[in-house]
Amino acid sequence: MLTTKEPIRDIAHLGHVELLTPRPDESLWYFHDILGMEIAHAEGQSVYLRGYGDYAATTLKLTEAAQPGVGHIGWRAVSPQALDRRVAAIEQTGLGIGWSNGDYGHGRCYQFNDPDFHSMEIYFDEQKYDPPEELKSTLRNLPMKFPKDGIGVRRTDHLAVLCKDVAANRGFMQDCLGLNLREQVIYDNGATEIGSWMSSTPVHHEIAYVVDVKGMDARLHHFSLWVDNRADVLRAADIFMENGIFIEAGPSKHNNSQAFYLYSYEPGGNRVEIYTGGFLVFAPDFETVVWDEENRGNGVYWGGALPDSFLNYATPDGEAAAGEGRKDIPVIDPR
Amino acid sequence: MLTTKEPIRDIAHLGHVELLTPRPDESLWYFHDILGMEIAHAEGQSVYLRGYGDYAATTLKLTEAAQPGVGHIGWRAVSPQALDRRVAAIEQTGLGIGWSNGDYGHGRCYQFNDPDFHSMEIYFDEQKYDPPEELKSTLRNLPMKFPKDGIGVRRTDHLAVLCKDVAANRGFMQDCLGLNLREQVIYDNGATEIGSWMSSTPVHHEIAYVVDVKGMDARLHHFSLWVDNRADVLRAADIFMENGIFIEAGPSKHNNSQAFYLYSYEPGGNRVEIYTGGFLVFAPDFETVVWDEENRGNGVYWGGALPDSFLNYATPDGEAAAGEGRKDIPVIDPR
Amino acid sequence: MLTTKEPIRDIAHLGHVELLTPRPDESLWYFHDILGMEIAHAEGQSVYLRGYGDYAATTLKLTEAAQPGVGHIGWRAVSPQALDRRVAAIEQTGLGIGWSNGDYGHGRCYQFNDPDFHSMEIYFDEQKYDPPEELKSTLRNLPMKFPKDGIGVRRTDHLAVLCKDVAANRGFMQDCLGLNLREQVIYDNGATEIGSWMSSTPVHHEIAYVVDVKGMDARLHHFSLWVDNRADVLRAADIFMENGIFIEAGPSKHNNSQAFYLYSYEPGGNRVEIYTGGFLVFAPDFETVVWDEENRGNGVYWGGALPDSFLNYATPDGEAAAGEGRKDIPVIDPR
Amino acid sequence: MLTTKEPIRDIAHLGHVELLTPRPDESLWYFHDILGMEIAHAEGQSVYLRGYGDYAATTLKLTEAAQPGVGHIGWRAVSPQALDRRVAAIEQTGLGIGWSNGDYGHGRCYQFNDPDFHSMEIYFDEQKYDPPEELKSTLRNLPMKFPKDGIGVRRTDHLAVLCKDVAANRGFMQDCLGLNLREQVIYDNGATEIGSWMSSTPVHHEIAYVVDVKGMDARLHHFSLWVDNRADVLRAADIFMENGIFIEAGPSKHNNSQAFYLYSYEPGGNRVEIYTGGFLVFAPDFETVVWDEENRGNGVYWGGALPDSFLNYATPDGEAAAGEGRKDIPVIDPR
Repeated sequence: MLTTKEPIRDIAHLGHVELLTPRPDESLWYFHDILGMEIAHAEGQSVYLRGYGDYAATTLKLTEAAQPGVGHIGWRAVSPQALDRRVAAIEQTGLGIGWSNGDYGHGRCYQFNDPDFHSMEIYFDEQKYDPPEELKSTLRNLPMKFPKDGIGVRRTDHLAVLCKDVAANRGFMQDCLGLNLREQVIYDNGATEIGSWMSSTPVHHEIAYVVDVKGMDARLHHFSLWVDNRADVLRAADIFMENGIFIEAGPSKHNNSQAFYLYSYEPGGNRVEIYTGGFLVFAPDFETVVWDEENRGNGVYWGGALPDSFLNYATPDGEAAAGEGRKDIPVIDPR
Repeated sequence: MLTTKEPIRDIAHLGHVELLTPRPDESLWYFHDILGMEIAHAEGQSVYLRGYGDYAATTLKLTEAAQPGVGHIGWRAVSPQALDRRVAAIEQTGLGIGWSNGDYGHGRCYQFNDPDFHSMEIYFDEQKYDPPEELKSTLRNLPMKFPKDGIGVRRTDHLAVLCKDVAANRGFMQDCLGLNLREQVIYDNGATEIGSWMSSTPVHHEIAYVVDVKGMDARLHHFSLWVDNRADVLRAADIFMENGIFIEAGPSKHNNSQAFYLYSYEPGGNRVEIYTGGFLVFAPDFETVVWDEENRGNGVYWGGALPDSFLNYATPDGEAAAGEGRKDIPVIDPR
Repeated sequence: MLTTKEPIRDIAHLGHVELLTPRPDESLWYFHDILGMEIAHAEGQSVYLRGYGDYAATTLKLTEAAQPGVGHIGWRAVSPQALDRRVAAIEQTGLGIGWSNGDYGHGRCYQFNDPDFHSMEIYFDEQKYDPPEELKSTLRNLPMKFPKDGIGVRRTDHLAVLCKDVAANRGFMQDCLGLNLREQVIYDNGATEIGSWMSSTPVHHEIAYVVDVKGMDARLHHFSLWVDNRADVLRAADIFMENGIFIEAGPSKHNNSQAFYLYSYEPGGNRVEIYTGGFLVFAPDFETVVWDEENRGNGVYWGGALPDSFLNYATPDGEAAAGEGRKDIPVIDPR
Repeated sequence: MLTTKEPIRDIAHLGHVELLTPRPDESLWYFHDILGMEIAHAEGQSVYLRGYGDYAATTLKLTEAAQPGVGHIGWRAVSPQALDRRVAAIEQTGLGIGWSNGDYGHGRCYQFNDPDFHSMEIYFDEQKYDPPEELKSTLRNLPMKFPKDGIGVRRTDHLAVLCKDVAANRGFMQDCLGLNLREQVIYDNGATEIGSWMSSTPVHHEIAYVVDVKGMDARLHHFSLWVDNRADVLRAADIFMENGIFIEAGPSKHNNSQAFYLYSYEPGGNRVEIYTGGFLVFAPDFETVVWDEENRGNGVYWGGALPDSFLNYATPDGEAAAGEGRKDIPVIDPR
């Protein structure tokens, strides 16, 4: 038997994401009061949040900024050795920035950019969540109490970012981080890579790269949070409607990933997905599923079509002035 | 064709229930913070609550008392004429008490006892809920906002009371109120009526009479609140576990009624059921379903068996001193 | 107190519906193999079907015809006396036709038209379902086994028909049958009645009249079948997609009725809704909810918008030749 | 930083399981007609089945035998090199048997025993499922159609086996296969290892070892199949009840794993679990959750208690004669 190259398996999972918001109070109301995420820490212009099932102290950093968008994306390595191997690979690309002493919740990390200038970092040392007494769960294997209030998102699932060159960014994530390619949308008889979905774990995707129709830098398409049941997504739609949260699309089922989804805009302007279902990828020789113009359709298996905004809107929005966010997002008074 | 007597159709529905509690603060925390019921009014030793889907201003009156149990049970008539007809029928039995000027939420009512001395009343004038601005739903046909916090019970469904003589009480409710008999448990080859389930609407039952194994007066077995989905019952179980609420039985499926249920004790000691599913009865000539020792089993279609406490415990509990409630119910500090 | 007129309460429920299909084999495959309805009887060009929870022997008569559409609509009275009262009222309108000896499943009935010439009948004698041994449920209060195959619709819920004059038809059903008016869509500052939803039971609506934009006679908009859980609607969408059934809209939530729905076309061309949720109406003095252009929107509370076909397509379709049905409905080979 | 040893990550996932049955026709009816698994192949005394979401040609081999139980357990390696590494490790223990040419669905494999003599094998080459035309899904990333009939299990999740020495078997699986230890039940102040739950993927566990209270060899406690939704487990309970399948426990929620479960006996006598929920383990430094007598309780978070049979019954059952299976399992005539 010929010896084929073994896969890189150095990334444990998508660790945390920093979102930027020009309306920090309203955004916090959305993530805490509506989604039911716990506030683990606050420092400077940032609040650190977590889903009730996240093992880490924090998985979402919410930071005040002139424009919405993604601040940085953190990847956890499986071991210190794996961290070193990935840093070495990144440094060879010229996209490395250097080591940092870390942040609330995790230790030293190596910072870098992807080819589209999304800020990323990789680290191994992570602080596990230690709940205060009143938040201790009656389940010994649950990091904190299942929340009785709000939608009750369990954990970060994935994010989707826009970029000018999907192939370049996808290749960087495969080669330097060892992410596995799950699905792709390729148009023009294989010539135009529209989007690529990748993951380090059996979870279908932790990051997706999709082409930026406006050709801007380092934008966020959406950030996605997991709920355990399709019933939770339906309940989330009722809660969004009653609380003035803009629903852009769903509840519907994706064809890509098979997941059941609901897209909202948080008050700062970032698109946030409530997400469940989908399929886990166990095959070590999984063959990437490729969709073309015809079989991709509009990305929906059943449920309402995705509106034009789903293709055209991302954060920061090129048409909004700094500090204003998107003008047509309903303004909500946070309580 | 022989002219058979036409059915009485004078009761619109079970209108409201008053529960007594020796721990009013904890009980209010249970109904408001955990179940998500809205507080419509407070007066004297009572707080008036409602489910988000109840059209009436209030459907649950929670009153401080030395012992838990049911205070009174209110029935709404379909019309003023129907009210008069029912009062006339009740007065003939000698169980009538007299007219009262009503209470918060409804107008004049006629008070009476059932043969087991449960306090009841019947009325027509009822105040519809008029939500404050911040509780107005985005659905024009929903009386108030779907609550984002807590279990989110939609409405009162039914209650079950204990009595010494099921046949006498069941017959009174059929003859005087015109309730329809849905299901019965009859043991000893038809000789012993153990329980009877009745309703004025297609809802399977609004009141059940079950024999009191302790032979006490006017006790409550359970009060039942409706949620829309079986998923909501499962979520309720998680919320109960995380908040120190005692789960006595379920989530499981009844054979009688086919409903999906979860029994808890509210901190005052009353058994409260979270309930959904079941079947609606549309047939005007519905034949009462009768269960005997063999086919009744323990009343569970699937899911865990009902514990002994389900048969032996009711409120007030004969073994608890006044003002103490049941001693083995977890004490919870209300917030 | 002034004596106001008491409501008519003579109709027990929508009893059965006859659907016409130019593709009887494919339609039967849809209702039996896909929806999981049981075949109770076959006779002539008709097959008689039932949901597993229907108490009557049959609730859906499927009849071969040149064009799809609704054959007739059967209403069950609460008593023989009620039947006589309703017949007397109908005869006064000149829309009565006369008595018939009945059909499989029910006894003598009085036939009539509504003002838009939809064929209707009213009856009291109905045959209860008596399942063969292998279809007896392990639940004594369930008419037959819960089906393990197919979507598993429990029972008929309602139908919506088109008409040229909503007010005339709505008034006829209120006056002659005593149906209760639940919700209305009225445009042009109250001048144009677009649709009216009515019921004889607490079920939100059993029949809706909606204006026919093509001005044709006696058309069907959709026929609706109940499933117990929102999860069943989601599963139905997966089953429809995998079996070539056209999904026109949903899964989504209506604003009117609050129900969760999925619209498909059965192979004969009729629109069939898989339906759950919604709210029960208990108030005897329920105030009809009226929607105008602004607050009606497109009738969807959340989920995808209704497509143009939802407004323009009905059966029979004026643009299809007799015997052909709608040309763009996928042709499926029944197994 | 000290260089700690990196984890073994050579196993891709639990590949397939062979179950033995003395009633092959009835067992096939259970897995195919009731659970909705597809028959991929039949050969000799075996039928090869698959869940609709399994990527491999087959994941369950059902083989006629004198006694129920587990035939063998197959593990898929992540690469040919990983296969060689694991074989080398196994051979050092003396528990290796040798290479085989494989079976339907997979290529050459290395056979071995665990210390309790459960037959196992490890392999890399696996045949992906290639559905016949009529079973091709409309979803390009789903190996076959979502089944409209039966419960619709998606894939194999895990199995639990009994053994005389949990520590020895658990250590073997950690050292030789590199499985990760998720949760343990340890009694007697840490002295008695009652059970250990392990996995090669983020799925909570793929195999559990639990102490055999009868001290027999190589027995099966249960085999577990995944459904996507808690609603599917509830539907499964209804289907089991209507089709004479014995439900031993559930629907209930485990504390260990947090999963939602339903235990049945297939007609051959093996315990089969319908399973969903639970949590995924992403932390590379996950700390094993250890339960003792007090916090373990009976293993149920909410829902009915596990009956004694759950502790005492396994397959083969020492009290049943060969060829008979368990005498008290309902005999069902397969269709």
